[in-house]
Amino acid sequence: MPSNHSKILVESIKRLIRRDAIFNLKKIVKKTHAADLSIAFRMLSIDHQHKLFGMIDDIEKKGILFSELDKDIFLNLIEGLEIDDIVEIVEHMPSDDVADLIDKMPKETSNTILGKMKKEGSEEVADLLSYPNDTAGGIMVPDFIALKENTTAKKAIESLQEEFHDVEMPFYLYAIDEYGKLVGVCSLRQLVVVPQETPLKNFMTTEVLSVQTDVDQEEVAKIVARYDILAVPVVNETNKLVGIVTVDDVIDIFREEATEDILKMAGVGEEFIETQSVLRNTKIRFPWLFASCIGGIFAFFIIGRFEAHLIKHAYLAAFIPVIMGMGGNIGTQSSTIVVRGLATGRFIIRDTWTVVTKELTTGTILGLIYGSIIGCVAQWQYDTITFAISVGFAVLSSMSIAALLGSLVPMAFAKIHIDPAVATGPFVTTAIDIISVFCYFKIATTFLNI
Amino acid sequence: MPSNHSKILVESIKRLIRRDAIFNLKKIVKKTHAADLSIAFRMLSIDHQHKLFGMIDDIEKKGILFSELDKDIFLNLIEGLEIDDIVEIVEHMPSDDVADLIDKMPKETSNTILGKMKKEGSEEVADLLSYPNDTAGGIMVPDFIALKENTTAKKAIESLQEEFHDVEMPFYLYAIDEYGKLVGVCSLRQLVVVPQETPLKNFMTTEVLSVQTDVDQEEVAKIVARYDILAVPVVNETNKLVGIVTVDDVIDIFREEATEDILKMAGVGEEFIETQSVLRNTKIRFPWLFASCIGGIFAFFIIGRFEAHLIKHAYLAAFIPVIMGMGGNIGTQSSTIVVRGLATGRFIIRDTWTVVTKELTTGTILGLIYGSIIGCVAQWQYDTITFAISVGFAVLSSMSIAALLGSLVPMAFAKIHIDPAVATGPFVTTAIDIISVFCYFKIATTFLNI
Repeated sequence: MPSNHSKILVESIKRLIRRDAIFNLKKIVKKTHAADLSIAFRMLSIDHQHKLFGMIDDIEKKGILFSELDKDIFLNLIEGLEIDDIVEIVEHMPSDDVADLIDKMPKETSNTILGKMKKEGSEEVADLLSYPNDTAGGIMVPDFIALKENTTAKKAIESLQEEFHDVEMPFYLYAIDEYGKLVGVCSLRQLVVVPQETPLKNFMTTEVLSVQTDVDQEEVAKIVARYDILAVPVVNETNKLVGIVTVDDVIDIFREEATEDILKMAGVGEEFIETQSVLRNTKIRFPWLFASCIGGIFAFFIIGRFEAHLIKHAYLAAFIPVIMGMGGNIGTQSSTIVVRGLATGRFIIRDTWTVVTKELTTGTILGLIYGSIIGCVAQWQYDTITFAISVGFAVLSSMSIAALLGSLVPMAFAKIHIDPAVATGPFVTTAIDIISVFCYFKIATTFLNI
Repeated sequence: MPSNHSKILVESIKRLIRRDAIFNLKKIVKKTHAADLSIAFRMLSIDHQHKLFGMIDDIEKKGILFSELDKDIFLNLIEGLEIDDIVEIVEHMPSDDVADLIDKMPKETSNTILGKMKKEGSEEVADLLSYPNDTAGGIMVPDFIALKENTTAKKAIESLQEEFHDVEMPFYLYAIDEYGKLVGVCSLRQLVVVPQETPLKNFMTTEVLSVQTDVDQEEVAKIVARYDILAVPVVNETNKLVGIVTVDDVIDIFREEATEDILKMAGVGEEFIETQSVLRNTKIRFPWLFASCIGGIFAFFIIGRFEAHLIKHAYLAAFIPVIMGMGGNIGTQSSTIVVRGLATGRFIIRDTWTVVTKELTTGTILGLIYGSIIGCVAQWQYDTITFAISVGFAVLSSMSIAALLGSLVPMAFAKIHIDPAVATGPFVTTAIDIISVFCYFKIATTFLNI
């Protein structure tokens, strides 16, 4: 559904609720995908949300809606629902989605729900919850098809109809040995095209890509993307198959990680805040601005130290913006390249030396070019060659230092396992502002020999 | 393969080449996935690339490698290959990948290759090339399984073994009517679990999501992501099925689009440049810095207009960095939220009013807070209440204007179909710098009544 359709959907829903047109509402709810309903829910009052929710007949659809809702909306919604109804819905959901929901709920609610769930289901969920959220273990589904390697194609197909009829995404069948260890994989397609009496081990691929439960979710996603596969099996430390991560989750991981990185670089938290209240929005954005404020006050004191010179040479002030701007912008360029390069695996920490040298060279070349341009402007306006040279030199040093810091800092943060995206925003920008201003005044006062 | 393994791979390859250990090299090439080889190629000399390439026995693997290589490397590599060898390789590739390669080549080479290909293949490729690159038509594969709706499950499975044995990703079977129009879809899994004599129309889903050939690739990707499907059928204007877009391409689209947006916002082009030469790197980054340079020079002239005041009140200069910094940072926050919000479909152009109002409110609240803080610093340092108030007021106006521009500009650009990510970088940052400086001096000189 193209995104402007959601407004039309919301408007129809509101109109029908006003008219109390139950029959038509039910028809809309029935034919709208849960993913689209979840977007409509963002724009509906809590009362209307409940009204609409009550009209969903299909319990599995209620479950999909639960998974698709934004956290705040989900928590508000379930507050008005009976615990037994919630339990019934989650019992019809895949256990990885249940684990995600449980994770969002207040401890008390989640304990009640887990307590009321059937034992098998709640154990699966508890298992998943025992892995950190952002690892293969935390995102895998325990629903997969595992068969002994000597099972025939025919038997395997029969098991799809019986034992595994509720496995969600059965693209691959995994072959395991007598200890449950992963030994091979074959596709559903291979299964139907081989002679029906062939055992799996005769046509399965034995070079199976797999990940251990503790592998970071981004790494898992990269594997799925690189090898164009639909699911990657997850094994424990003894190579026993415990779950799979499917491609639909991989898409979500990539989108989330990209959004997170972009927001962090701009200092606006990790999660999308536009749907949150103005107050919350303000609170999340406060800290980064605080860092920048402290940096600005620092720059103020630096300039204050040069006030005596400023009184004599007021025109010094006029070049502050361009020197800060050039340094800040090239610093942002360098750090963006490094942060995104690290995120997409374009380069790794061991490349630090190469990357930083290259950035510094680029920064120096660009600094020479822009230093000359801005120096010429200074010469043209003030006709003092020493001042013109000092302005040009300040631009050069600001830009080359900015390119150096902009590339080195995220690399260094990555090395000590601090997310480079977080660091890049406040840290680099503020540091570059201060250094640029300091260099400028130091160089200018030295050159002017005052 | 975790990314630090690629260095180890490259090192082993280099060592083996030095030792001329053909046998071991062949073994490594054989067991390494083409996606990993493509990364190793980035770090090998052209001679070594050719040596390695010659050792690939499997022609399909050569094709995958072609698709995975960076553009520059690919073009260099094929320069040293015989045209007939290239033709043989591309004939074994899926036609959407061939179309991508053809697109990268110089006109002359691509014409020769298309001319030498078998008619059927080159026609498929030419068809794909007739659609714009970034639309459903440009990214679809023409390999899909389409059967008449009254085909039985058994016949459908047989057709998988015969007619459709080389379809790459056969998750879904599409049902078409006698005019080739799309009427239903069923999964491979349904096919094996239903009684074998059932016709498709008895169990297929008739509510099929599809996209037209001219739909933007990002929109297509969003549909696949939203509904957790593995492929979406592409139809022409008469609803005739012409191709499918598969989930593996969707992952690539999301990753590319996120990288593009991030790089554009920082003004470093669209494609990843770290692997390019310093000179090219410099050239790509030049324009955005130029915009910022022009902005800085503009700010210089504004400050120049106030030089007479600056001579009397040199301390005015000391607050330039903090006022510019606060405006610039909140502007970046606002524009980042809007650009990413538009990209992920969090909000749409029709939300402009809501989003901008919210950003302006947030900017004003934060402006009041930081205006007070910075005003207090001014009061503490200079003990002149009118100056303190004017500094505070300048921070407030700079921050609220920045939040307004930061949210309004990308929305406006999106409305007139200019990519908001491109606009946000140079345009917003430069504008905010100039406006901040101007407001500050205007307010300060007015308040100080000079």
